Amino acid sequence: MGGKENVISVFALGGLHEIGKNMYVIESSDDIIIIDCGNKFPDESLLGIDLIIPDISYLEENKKKVRALIVTHGHEDHIGGIPYLLKKLNIPVYATRFTLGLIELKLEEHKLLRDTELIEIDSNSKLAFGEMDIDFFRVNHSIPDCLGIVFRTPQGNIVHTGDFKFDLTPVNQQFSDIHKMAQIGTDGVLLLLSESTNAERPGGTPSEQMVGEQVLEAFIKATGKVVLSTFASNINRVQQVVEAAQKTRRKLALLGRSMVNVVDVAIERGYLQVPEGMIIEPNEINELPPEKVAILCTGSQGEPLAALSRLSTGNFRGVEILPDDTVILAAGPIPGNEKGISKIIDNLFAMGAKVLYGSGKGLHVSGHGYQEDLKLMLTLMKPKYFIPIHGEYRMLHQHRILAESVGVEKENTFIIKNGEIVDIENSIARQTREIQAGNTYVDGIGVGDVGEIVLRDRKQLSEDGMLVIVLTMSRTDKKLVSRPDTITRGFVYVRDSEELMRDMNRLIEKTVNDLQSSNKGQWGVIKQSLKKTLGEYLFNKTRRRPMILPIIIEI
Amino acid sequence: MGGKENVISVFALGGLHEIGKNMYVIESSDDIIIIDCGNKFPDESLLGIDLIIPDISYLEENKKKVRALIVTHGHEDHIGGIPYLLKKLNIPVYATRFTLGLIELKLEEHKLLRDTELIEIDSNSKLAFGEMDIDFFRVNHSIPDCLGIVFRTPQGNIVHTGDFKFDLTPVNQQFSDIHKMAQIGTDGVLLLLSESTNAERPGGTPSEQMVGEQVLEAFIKATGKVVLSTFASNINRVQQVVEAAQKTRRKLALLGRSMVNVVDVAIERGYLQVPEGMIIEPNEINELPPEKVAILCTGSQGEPLAALSRLSTGNFRGVEILPDDTVILAAGPIPGNEKGISKIIDNLFAMGAKVLYGSGKGLHVSGHGYQEDLKLMLTLMKPKYFIPIHGEYRMLHQHRILAESVGVEKENTFIIKNGEIVDIENSIARQTREIQAGNTYVDGIGVGDVGEIVLRDRKQLSEDGMLVIVLTMSRTDKKLVSRPDTITRGFVYVRDSEELMRDMNRLIEKTVNDLQSSNKGQWGVIKQSLKKTLGEYLFNKTRRRPMILPIIIEI
Repeated sequence: MGGKENVISVFALGGLHEIGKNMYVIESSDDIIIIDCGNKFPDESLLGIDLIIPDISYLEENKKKVRALIVTHGHEDHIGGIPYLLKKLNIPVYATRFTLGLIELKLEEHKLLRDTELIEIDSNSKLAFGEMDIDFFRVNHSIPDCLGIVFRTPQGNIVHTGDFKFDLTPVNQQFSDIHKMAQIGTDGVLLLLSESTNAERPGGTPSEQMVGEQVLEAFIKATGKVVLSTFASNINRVQQVVEAAQKTRRKLALLGRSMVNVVDVAIERGYLQVPEGMIIEPNEINELPPEKVAILCTGSQGEPLAALSRLSTGNFRGVEILPDDTVILAAGPIPGNEKGISKIIDNLFAMGAKVLYGSGKGLHVSGHGYQEDLKLMLTLMKPKYFIPIHGEYRMLHQHRILAESVGVEKENTFIIKNGEIVDIENSIARQTREIQAGNTYVDGIGVGDVGEIVLRDRKQLSEDGMLVIVLTMSRTDKKLVSRPDTITRGFVYVRDSEELMRDMNRLIEKTVNDLQSSNKGQWGVIKQSLKKTLGEYLFNKTRRRPMILPIIIEI
Repeated sequence: MGGKENVISVFALGGLHEIGKNMYVIESSDDIIIIDCGNKFPDESLLGIDLIIPDISYLEENKKKVRALIVTHGHEDHIGGIPYLLKKLNIPVYATRFTLGLIELKLEEHKLLRDTELIEIDSNSKLAFGEMDIDFFRVNHSIPDCLGIVFRTPQGNIVHTGDFKFDLTPVNQQFSDIHKMAQIGTDGVLLLLSESTNAERPGGTPSEQMVGEQVLEAFIKATGKVVLSTFASNINRVQQVVEAAQKTRRKLALLGRSMVNVVDVAIERGYLQVPEGMIIEPNEINELPPEKVAILCTGSQGEPLAALSRLSTGNFRGVEILPDDTVILAAGPIPGNEKGISKIIDNLFAMGAKVLYGSGKGLHVSGHGYQEDLKLMLTLMKPKYFIPIHGEYRMLHQHRILAESVGVEKENTFIIKNGEIVDIENSIARQTREIQAGNTYVDGIGVGDVGEIVLRDRKQLSEDGMLVIVLTMSRTDKKLVSRPDTITRGFVYVRDSEELMRDMNRLIEKTVNDLQSSNKGQWGVIKQSLKKTLGEYLFNKTRRRPMILPIIIEI
């Protein structure tokens, strides 16, 4: 021990100063262990991008040291990047039984299932890689079977909480193992990495049971069909819907591919108890009286192709919303999705349905601990050093203040960025080097083949469209052989803008002829000059800046 | 009276089933009166569109009958479309003194100020157009000098509330004239049009004074500079900031063009009282100790070019945020703006500032009445018929339920769409015809020259870019004269995709040659065929669908 070889490095490749794309790394001199590999969804500025995953250049460069991916739980922001990681690094994946079920669905889609080593663990498992011993503790979150991780290293113990809240009356026995956490704290924690999603919210997170009570009340009051939409992966909430359906003697139909898939995994693996014969096929809905039917569906975030949106526009084959039906949105809106959700609610009201939605109604509780939960974790673990993880800067910042309030010294909290490294040597942690980290864009099949230039072009095209100018010029005398051809898309209605087009064509000819008569007729000069002259002309006339693409054909 | 001539028609050209773009019309056989002419801002799907204004075709067709535009108050969603309306219809504009000040700023920008007849009214004014007598009542809202309107017609009285809340402890004497409203109700109201923005929110709206108290507390606690961002038009809030600055002996600097302009109008017209010598220029900020300075700035909605955003990135010349400064966001986020605002908060925290933001802190109250306010208006007016206005469908729907709860018969509430007409004949209201109404897009200088096709093209271009193929073909034998030229933008990095480009060029040549050898070489067929073949090829290879534009040059 001591000496350079024993340094333990801790850093993130995703999840810091952002929500989503979580990926953390613990590295010793010989071994690299990865925790989670999530994706995140692009905002509107990333035109055409489907998905964002972590930049894993550092791991590729250190391929030989990477021993394992350990996954804390099965949400997309923790598993969504796994197929892309495995295409580059063939490493074993460790996760709990339910999490593995969701990972398998994903790998199957990417045709990677056969070649991946998947290893089931539970909170009693113990792993060892080189000098690091690893064990686990159960945490409660809005998906079953979640883990926190303890790395026992020669430098000291490092704890990664995963996502968590403390729910003391959990559904389906998804309890937090507080006694084990207390023991870990007693063993001594050198460094804690704890999630910060709700570090801004005072108080403690309400229990998932509250949602169950509200859902049951809505089921009891409902006179027609009940349609409930929530996150497919929230199996504990699904369990409560199943129970409400059972108590009100309704059959349950599942709509939406991910709802069907995830519920299948949950039933098959024992995380969801559904009475025999309760689940019916969508085509059986109309055979029963409405008051005997409940529907559980995807689309609570307003996704336009998901089941709820299609129901709200009358486009779900064979299933109709009737005036007496009750629709429950049992999910909070993820910021950015409010408009899509509002549209659906409007449509459902217009169909005459009763719609239950909105905050403060107890139809949704967060899976992420509020300030009191976070303080409890910090108190149990009593870490010397602290890295707040999972969140925008302001959440990490608030989490540091919480840590200070329960006794972590201010200078022992590291607010780092993705790629910034905290090194532990002689049991002292310091922020040191920085490695490459960032966003890799997935667009269709392409991974990383779209970057700033392509996106800048898309942005210009999206705002003002484009104008292609084809000039056919003689190879011998360098003169225009015919009138220029111009084509526009996304700029103006050409039929309403004949005068503009005519003037533009005149300007093109004049520009080209002027350049040639002054002997400046090189192709490059002509192109630059057309871009500039036409660009200014069109901006003056329209206040728009279409992309101008001059093409010269030499004959 | 009686007879067809006396029908009074009521309809909206904007503001129903949407937030923004408010424009309502009262039409008798001889006269048309317009109420408000607002704009709204496009969502992300309307690529490149700057502004949305109402489609006023109906008014243009009935130009001769249009007598006046009456404006209830000076918010953008009530005045933002005025310049575009006045370019088509030269009609007088009636508004209160403060509202006129804001309209003048707008008309000046559009160089329309000189040619417009602006007529100042107040809540005691009385107007008459043909058979219609018009008078007014004061309402309280988040901008000074707001009016509700009473149309006294031969069919009965029609009341339009404008935007309102009941604030019993208003700032700057901006009280609601409840006694006058009660008298109007006693006179008898046949039809009420009342705003629905907050019809979903239970309870009553808190008083603007609450914000004043919180702001003062923050000013007292602050040790460095105080920077406060709010809506420029909320002069009552600005007044409270002025008072907090005065009580804590700070000078006040204004940053952001609209803040400077609106405060100027407010001071000049007597709506804002600022002690002599309190306002300083931005370049004087650094001459004073931080604890003697407050800054009032634009940008509370996260607008990237506004003052607050520039302060948060260190890009406001001459003004810096220091570690001990306090930044107050005294405005709620308009849905859709959350991400931009979050980014700013993150940056301010990173600069070490203390940032006060978020709901439930009393730093913002709505200017729109909650359910109890709406019920009070309905109770005061006791209308026979009711049209809920201003809002998405679900808000109109909730407002109908509120109306029912205070005695409006359910079938007497009309939930109509823009363009749908309620006719009143023999004092009986019925929903009848429908006229043209909708969105007119403003893009740069162009008004209405961008529509569905252009937007569809922009969308395709924005997601997957484009590919231009230039084929030079012989006029005589219809064969390719040279290799095809291809240009892409916004599709892939060409440098990383050489193989794709090479294969694509081969496919183009093969497609053209095959068609010609089977005598299908007409230009139209070649173009269609290239679009299809290449489209499929590129989709298979990349899962993207760039816009493909084949151009054939004949020589």
